[in-house]
Amino acid sequence: MHVQQMISTHPHVQGSTNDVLIQCIEECYSCAQTCTSCADACLGEKMVEQLTQCIRLNLDCADVCAAAGSVATRRTGSNEQVIRAMLAACETACRQCAEECERHASHHEHCRICAESCRRCEQACQEAARSMG
Amino acid sequence: MHVQQMISTHPHVQGSTNDVLIQCIEECYSCAQTCTSCADACLGEKMVEQLTQCIRLNLDCADVCAAAGSVATRRTGSNEQVIRAMLAACETACRQCAEECERHASHHEHCRICAESCRRCEQACQEAARSMG
Amino acid sequence: MHVQQMISTHPHVQGSTNDVLIQCIEECYSCAQTCTSCADACLGEKMVEQLTQCIRLNLDCADVCAAAGSVATRRTGSNEQVIRAMLAACETACRQCAEECERHASHHEHCRICAESCRRCEQACQEAARSMG
Amino acid sequence: MHVQQMISTHPHVQGSTNDVLIQCIEECYSCAQTCTSCADACLGEKMVEQLTQCIRLNLDCADVCAAAGSVATRRTGSNEQVIRAMLAACETACRQCAEECERHASHHEHCRICAESCRRCEQACQEAARSMG
Repeated sequence: MHVQQMISTHPHVQGSTNDVLIQCIEECYSCAQTCTSCADACLGEKMVEQLTQCIRLNLDCADVCAAAGSVATRRTGSNEQVIRAMLAACETACRQCAEECERHASHHEHCRICAESCRRCEQACQEAARSMG
Repeated sequence: MHVQQMISTHPHVQGSTNDVLIQCIEECYSCAQTCTSCADACLGEKMVEQLTQCIRLNLDCADVCAAAGSVATRRTGSNEQVIRAMLAACETACRQCAEECERHASHHEHCRICAESCRRCEQACQEAARSMG
Repeated sequence: MHVQQMISTHPHVQGSTNDVLIQCIEECYSCAQTCTSCADACLGEKMVEQLTQCIRLNLDCADVCAAAGSVATRRTGSNEQVIRAMLAACETACRQCAEECERHASHHEHCRICAESCRRCEQACQEAARSMG
Repeated sequence: MHVQQMISTHPHVQGSTNDVLIQCIEECYSCAQTCTSCADACLGEKMVEQLTQCIRLNLDCADVCAAAGSVATRRTGSNEQVIRAMLAACETACRQCAEECERHASHHEHCRICAESCRRCEQACQEAARSMG
């Protein structure tokens, strides 16, 4: 990912970047991919009927992370309120997905990795929201 | 759109549907399309440099509406918290985009139509949030 | 949806619209919603382990339809090659999803409706591609 | 990104992964972010009216890369035809966006970085398509 490089060359930014927001953008894109992958892996498990809620939360989390990542990337206008609301939604989606994935982490390695990714993204969203003052 | 038809045949729903949520899903998909179209129309205007903030809010609103529409469609699990957070984010994105589009509505018909679409979606999100108790 | 209204007010279009492309855009957004809904309904069925391939194709089709709808909405530049490639991808995704949904249509009403939506979108993509000469 | 880790723990994959496809998935997510960022940076430039086609191709490329990344992540079913069609669409979108960004690369550093990202993604899509036989 080239998040830092791209944002630092933005005409409104000119070198001074919010590193916490950049970290958050990277986690959002990464978590969107991880959740999409975890949903597909869950669909391949023999006991898929025990993982349907996990799959739904994976899909929700992937959608919300992707939108949060795009909105936060487009941060240079005066859209702070939309970013804040999306960071809050993303934190919620990541927490719910992490809680569910953690329940399956001892049986399914993909759920363990996905739970970790969601927890990192949840925390990155919290810190980015705080950094916006 | 077949939102009502699809949700009423969901095994967990069995005929009794939340009409306010269905209306909200339709407005989210419709507003995502309208905002994508308005951004492109703004990019085609001669005075595009006066419309850059409008384009950004259009793009934000399109991303948030699309994610809100997907999450709300997937309402049958116990993901109420994620839906609520996304309805709040969508209401914010629609309001901000509507306010900006309204400033250009007398000069650009696409902004006038888009502002109306955003206002309808903003209200549908409010009402859907209220209907969830 | 306000596809026709929005495109007809685009500064590059000025009233003369490609009705076949407009129909295609509407089907793409509608099919994206229907496939997202069908995946969630399949996840709620008791025999979910027989529907995992259907869910995957639903999710693929939803992603491809959403992207095709956005790209086709943004048709006013000289991006014809991208639109063509996305119409081809969307036709493929819709056909594959329709074939799978049709296998479950007699047992699950949501699959029957979804198959119809995919077939309409498949055909609309074909016709839109043809209309672009 | 945890693409390799996630795919290698998928129940259908069990350790043997297609490294070329994994590379492609990473480039798709990365390029989606870069193009979203380049569109926003272009919107911040004084000479935005000279960059409108660049912004459109950035937005197209971001949408197509995001969808291609999701579909390729969900590779474990028998959806090879959809993946192939999306890899072809993504290659086209990346090439067109790269060609346009290269025209502005000497004036705008964000366009230079974005062109490179698009070229890497274009090549990764080509190689992934070839690796699928």
